[in-house]
Amino acid sequence: MRYKLTIEYDGTNLLGWQRQTDGMSVQQYLEEILDKLNGTHTEIVSAGRTDAGVHALAQVVHIDLNRPMELWKIKEAFNGNLLAQEAPVSVLEVEAVDDSFSARFSAKKRGYIYRILNRRAPSPLLKNRVWWVPYPLDIEKMREGASFLIGHHDFTSFRASACQAKSPIKTLDKIEIEQQGEEIIFQVEARSFLHHQVRNMVGTLKLVGEGRIPPIKIKEILDAKNRKAAGPTAPAGGLYLSKVEY
Amino acid sequence: MRYKLTIEYDGTNLLGWQRQTDGMSVQQYLEEILDKLNGTHTEIVSAGRTDAGVHALAQVVHIDLNRPMELWKIKEAFNGNLLAQEAPVSVLEVEAVDDSFSARFSAKKRGYIYRILNRRAPSPLLKNRVWWVPYPLDIEKMREGASFLIGHHDFTSFRASACQAKSPIKTLDKIEIEQQGEEIIFQVEARSFLHHQVRNMVGTLKLVGEGRIPPIKIKEILDAKNRKAAGPTAPAGGLYLSKVEY
Repeated sequence: MRYKLTIEYDGTNLLGWQRQTDGMSVQQYLEEILDKLNGTHTEIVSAGRTDAGVHALAQVVHIDLNRPMELWKIKEAFNGNLLAQEAPVSVLEVEAVDDSFSARFSAKKRGYIYRILNRRAPSPLLKNRVWWVPYPLDIEKMREGASFLIGHHDFTSFRASACQAKSPIKTLDKIEIEQQGEEIIFQVEARSFLHHQVRNMVGTLKLVGEGRIPPIKIKEILDAKNRKAAGPTAPAGGLYLSKVEY
Repeated sequence: MRYKLTIEYDGTNLLGWQRQTDGMSVQQYLEEILDKLNGTHTEIVSAGRTDAGVHALAQVVHIDLNRPMELWKIKEAFNGNLLAQEAPVSVLEVEAVDDSFSARFSAKKRGYIYRILNRRAPSPLLKNRVWWVPYPLDIEKMREGASFLIGHHDFTSFRASACQAKSPIKTLDKIEIEQQGEEIIFQVEARSFLHHQVRNMVGTLKLVGEGRIPPIKIKEILDAKNRKAAGPTAPAGGLYLSKVEY
């Protein structure tokens, strides 16, 4: 019996999605509960292997249960257990799915949000929730720079050295940049991303926003196919896995 | 030289506004920095003495400096020091004011926001930021109940036993309740409030929203002039001091 779970988490004190030996991950929290339900160990697969510090508004995983369970009971079993452990993880939704469904391989589109707080004073209430940038950023210039990233490209310049993807070629469907109050919000969508791709794109576009490099430089960085050509990786705390489409 | 400071803080790990012997308060963080600037100790007065766990989007305080300083330098001096200590406090704005200005006594209106997260699943990202109520609340009924609180009343039923105000009679100017996505937001305004008044009103209106008491019961509770007649105090983490008008 296969089920699709939609998950929220605060990544601040987590080592990310993937199980690690030196601290708690979302995968370990969920697998320990699933193991209790099944009486045996199974690995849980997610749509996105988010890094330490990265949040999720709607991560998706699938689980297999030995015996059918009502959807609300699955949700309560997970959330009751997660709350008791004070885990920064919550199950938002449970749906029954076909055995052929894979949270990872069936995903047609992944969406991320990146939040920059662009004001002089830091925000204690948004600590670990945004990237605090205390000098003004030019949104129009960032949009112009971002436009070169849309489409089918070799994203080597925006790929972490640890990235395990077979190919650096990806299709970026959307990168929208909006001002919302004191925040600058990036909305990014693709079928899939390279490791650190969103954070490396945001970190480089921020240089454009500061006026340190012109928008056209983004095209040159892309063409260079060299990680060293691009800017730094934006901090994890501003990134949210916001949707997965199937 | 008197200055008005607007302050944001995350109250989660603070013992509240007021200086305590057993942990950090907003007052202590700010006074320690002011003492360094002046070379002598002065007490700082705020518009609202928020409790432990309560947040501020725009608390107001006034300070006196021995010698004039540029406004941006005051802001940087406080924020540099607060950031270095990893204090959950930030100075948003600094203005020069007349010596007769008092953050506390000159205030004409105080505004609070109370956030309820009204959905089945808990939210790790909103932990300590909202009151999580997992069963449906009827907003229309809460609005009807709230309408009895507007105006000039004896608020004894909504007053903490520790309240030091001389009189329990206050004028409530506004209590608006809005649905915003999965949240129910209370906006409350008055010249001043009794201790725990907002949290006691929200805790009681939540009983109306659940259907446990009818809206008209709010009028009876008010008339009873007895704290025991009202509902429980809503949790601190959902409350934000949001504005002070002078």
